Amino acid sequence: MINYKVILNFIGFLLIIDGIAMMLGVPFSIYYGDNDVPVLLLTGSGISISGLILYYFTKSKNKNKGITKREGYIVVSLGWIVMSVFGALPFVFHGSIPSFTDAFFETMSGFTTTGSSILNNIEAMPHGLLFWRSLTQWLGGMGFIVLSLAILPILGIGGMQLFVAEVPGPTKDKIHPRVRETAKRLWAIYLILTFAEVLLLLIGGMNFFDAINHSFTTMATGGFSTKQDSIAYFTSPFIHYVIIVFMFLAGMNFSLHYFLLHRKFKQVSENEEFRFYTFLIIAFTLVITFGIYTEHNFGFETSFRDSLFQVVSMITTTGFVTADYELWGVFYHTLFFLMLFIGGSAGSTGGGVKAVRHLLLIKNSALELRRLVHPRAVIPVRYNNASVSKDIIFNVMAFLLFYLAIFVTATILMTLVGLDFLTAMGSVATCLGNVGPAIEGVGPTDNFAHIPDVGKWILSFLMLLGRLELFTILIIFSPSFWKK
Amino acid sequence: MINYKVILNFIGFLLIIDGIAMMLGVPFSIYYGDNDVPVLLLTGSGISISGLILYYFTKSKNKNKGITKREGYIVVSLGWIVMSVFGALPFVFHGSIPSFTDAFFETMSGFTTTGSSILNNIEAMPHGLLFWRSLTQWLGGMGFIVLSLAILPILGIGGMQLFVAEVPGPTKDKIHPRVRETAKRLWAIYLILTFAEVLLLLIGGMNFFDAINHSFTTMATGGFSTKQDSIAYFTSPFIHYVIIVFMFLAGMNFSLHYFLLHRKFKQVSENEEFRFYTFLIIAFTLVITFGIYTEHNFGFETSFRDSLFQVVSMITTTGFVTADYELWGVFYHTLFFLMLFIGGSAGSTGGGVKAVRHLLLIKNSALELRRLVHPRAVIPVRYNNASVSKDIIFNVMAFLLFYLAIFVTATILMTLVGLDFLTAMGSVATCLGNVGPAIEGVGPTDNFAHIPDVGKWILSFLMLLGRLELFTILIIFSPSFWKK
Repeated sequence: MINYKVILNFIGFLLIIDGIAMMLGVPFSIYYGDNDVPVLLLTGSGISISGLILYYFTKSKNKNKGITKREGYIVVSLGWIVMSVFGALPFVFHGSIPSFTDAFFETMSGFTTTGSSILNNIEAMPHGLLFWRSLTQWLGGMGFIVLSLAILPILGIGGMQLFVAEVPGPTKDKIHPRVRETAKRLWAIYLILTFAEVLLLLIGGMNFFDAINHSFTTMATGGFSTKQDSIAYFTSPFIHYVIIVFMFLAGMNFSLHYFLLHRKFKQVSENEEFRFYTFLIIAFTLVITFGIYTEHNFGFETSFRDSLFQVVSMITTTGFVTADYELWGVFYHTLFFLMLFIGGSAGSTGGGVKAVRHLLLIKNSALELRRLVHPRAVIPVRYNNASVSKDIIFNVMAFLLFYLAIFVTATILMTLVGLDFLTAMGSVATCLGNVGPAIEGVGPTDNFAHIPDVGKWILSFLMLLGRLELFTILIIFSPSFWKK
Repeated sequence: MINYKVILNFIGFLLIIDGIAMMLGVPFSIYYGDNDVPVLLLTGSGISISGLILYYFTKSKNKNKGITKREGYIVVSLGWIVMSVFGALPFVFHGSIPSFTDAFFETMSGFTTTGSSILNNIEAMPHGLLFWRSLTQWLGGMGFIVLSLAILPILGIGGMQLFVAEVPGPTKDKIHPRVRETAKRLWAIYLILTFAEVLLLLIGGMNFFDAINHSFTTMATGGFSTKQDSIAYFTSPFIHYVIIVFMFLAGMNFSLHYFLLHRKFKQVSENEEFRFYTFLIIAFTLVITFGIYTEHNFGFETSFRDSLFQVVSMITTTGFVTADYELWGVFYHTLFFLMLFIGGSAGSTGGGVKAVRHLLLIKNSALELRRLVHPRAVIPVRYNNASVSKDIIFNVMAFLLFYLAIFVTATILMTLVGLDFLTAMGSVATCLGNVGPAIEGVGPTDNFAHIPDVGKWILSFLMLLGRLELFTILIIFSPSFWKK
C-alpha cells in the first residue's frame, strides 16, 4: 500500500521551501532597483502558503513512521518535478521568460544542476530572478547529495550502496530518521564550502551578487552564470583558479569532505574513486594543454588554465566556460564530447555516469579477459580493498547500458524534432549528464533557446532522468512497481 | 605450453588455400583479355607452394591430437591476418593498388566481410583481381560461420555458447574432430545458397561474372561490388529483391538453415533471435518507407524497395547500396548510423553486435527494473524457452561495453588522424561492425581512399577485432594469456 498522505505531506514541505526560497532574492532586486519584487513576493508567498496548507492537512500523527522504498521513489521523482513546475512560475509571471516551456526548462535545468539555459540576454534579467535561478541549482545540489548518500543507497540503485559503505548512514529497509543526521552533516559541509568560495571570489574582485550566485552554482556543479559569457566575462586568473578549486571540491564525494574535516587524510588519498577522478582531470588537462599550446598561440599559462578550467568544468558536470573549446579543433571537440559521459564522483553534486562506475567497469574489463583464460577461477573486482560482488558489477553495467540506450533513443527523437545529428547528440548527452553546454548548435557559446518546444520537454525529462540516476524515474514506469 | 608447430601447420594450410584461391579468377581474365593473368598465377603459385612447404615441415605424426583453446585463439587471429597480408599481394604486384596499406585495407575488408573499399574506379580493375576481391569475402564468410558456430562456443566468448545450444557440435575442452562434421554441413548450405543466388541473378539479367561476384559478397554479407555504384548500377527491381532475400538469408543463423533443410520450420519460426532480427528489419523498413514516401516523391514501390534494401543491407552488415540514404534527411541518416551497431544474427556471416545480444540485453533491462522492485526475487532472463544464467548476461553486457569502449577510443584516434567527428564515428562504427559504408565522409556514395594511411591501419585492425568478436584478439593482448 502506498501512503499518499505521506507523499503529499512531503510535497507540501517542499512547496514551503520553494516559495520561501524564491523570495530570498528580493533584497538584491530592491538594492538594484529591479521590477521583479512584487512578482517574487506574491508568487513566493502564494506557493509557500499553499504548501503550508497541504502540509498541515496531510500531517500524520505518528511522527516516526518513516516511508517505504516505493514511497521514496515517488517522493523523490515528484519532488523534483513539483519544485520545477512551481519554481518556473516567477519567470512566467514576471514576463522575462514568457513561455512556460522555456521557464520550466530553465528551472528544471536549475534544480537538476544541469545549467543548460534558454536565456539570450542574462544581464537583462532582474537580480531577484537571477538569484532565484542560481538558488535552484544550490538547492538542487543540496537535495542530490542527501539523495545520493542517504537515500539511493537504501533503494539499491546502480551500485550506489557501494559508494557509501564507509559513511555512517542508515541501513534498514525503511528510510530511518538517521537520514536527518547524515543530511545535517553534509549540508554543513556544503554551507562551509559555499561560504569559503564567496569569500575568495570577493577577494578576487567579484561583486557580492556575482560572488554569491557563482558560489551557489559552483558548489552545485550547476553552471548557471549571471553573465551571458559565463566565467569568460571575468578576466582575473585568480577567479578562474578559485572556481576550478571549488568545482573540483564539489565534484568529490562529500563523505570525503567529512573525512577531511576530521583530518582523516589517508582515507581521502587512498579512496580509489577520488584517485581516478583526479587522474582523469590531470590526464585530460595534460593532453589538451600540450595540444593547444603547441597548435595555437595562447601562451603556456593561458593554455594550461583554459584546459584545466574546461576539463574540470566538464568532468564535474558544472558547465562553466572560460574558452570556446570548439575553436581548438576536432580532436578537442571530440574529447569534450566524451567528457559529457564521465561525470563527477558518486556522492558529489556532479551528474553523469560518475567516475566510480567507469572505474569499476574498467577494472572488470581487464578481469574479463583473465576470466576467459581461466574460466573456472573466481576473479572478483577489488575496490577500496574489498571484493565487489558480481551483482554490483552487473548493476553498474546495466546502469551504463540504460544510460546509453536512453542517449541513443533521445538522440533519434531530437533529430526528429529537427536538430542536426551532432547538436542532437550533444544536447542529449549534456542534459542527461547534467552538464550544461555541449557541441555544435549547443556549444559553449550557444544556448538552448533555438530548440523547438517538444525538444525542450524531452531535454527537461532527460535532465530529471540523469539527476535521479535513471532508475528512480524508470522504476515508476515499470508495471511491477504498481502491482501489489 | 603452446604448440607452435600446430599453429604453423595450420598457417601453412591457409596459405595453400590463399594461393590457390587467388588463381581461380584467371579464366575470367583470359576471357575478358585482362593483363593480370601472370601476376595472379605467379603470386598464387608462389604463396601456395610456400604454404605447402610450411605445411609439410610442421606436420605432426599424431593426427587426432587437436589443439588447445589457447592455440585456437592464436590460430584464428593469425589466420585472418596472414590471409590478408598475402591476399593483398596480387593487388600490389599488379599495380592496380600500388600502396600496400591500401591493398591490405581492401583485403582485410574482404576477409572480414566488411566491404569498405579504397577503390575509386572499380570498373577499371581487371576481372581476375575483382574475382579475387569478391572471393576474399566469400572465404571470409565461410571461415566465420565455422568460427562462430563451431569454435567460438568452445572458447566461451560473449555468450556464444548460448546461440548454438541446439546445434549438434563439439562440447569438449579440446577442439574436437567433430568440428569437421559441423563445418562440412554448414559449408554445404553456404554453397547451395550461393549457387541459388547466382542462378536467380542470371535470370534477372546479370552477366555471369557479376552474378557470381555479387553472390559471393551477398552470402558473406560482405558488400564488395564489381560496380562503383554498387547495386544502384543495376536498375532491375527483380535483382534488388533477389539480393534483399539472400542478404536476409545470409544474416540468419546458419543452423536455422540446417533446420529449414530438414523441414523443421517450427524451430525456425519460434527462434527468438530470428523473430527479433525479422522484427527489426520490418520495423525500420516501415518507419523509413513511410517517412521517405511522405517526404519525397519516389513513388511507393521505390520508397519501399529502397528502404527495405538499405535496411536489410545495414542490419545484415552487407553494405550494398541502391540509394543514398544521406539525401533522405537527418533522421534517416541517424537511423542508419544506429543500424551500424545492430548486426546480423549470431552464427550468420553478419558482423556487428548481433541481434541476439541486443535481445538479451533488452530483456534483461526490463527485468532489471523488476529486480529493483523485488530485490530478493531471482528473476532470470528467458531465451528460447530456457533460463539464461546471469553469467551469460554478464558476458553479453561486458561484450557490448568492450565494443563501445573500442568505438569511443578509435573515434578519438580517427579525429587525431584528421577526420571530422562524424566521419570518424562513421568509419569506426562501420569497420568495427563489418558493414562497409557509413555516414558523412564515408557515406554510401563515398569510399575510404581519402583516409590517411595511419587511419587505414586503425580501421583494418577494427575490422579484424569486430570480425573475431573482439575477445579472440583482445585476449592475446592480455598478460594472463601468456602466463604459464
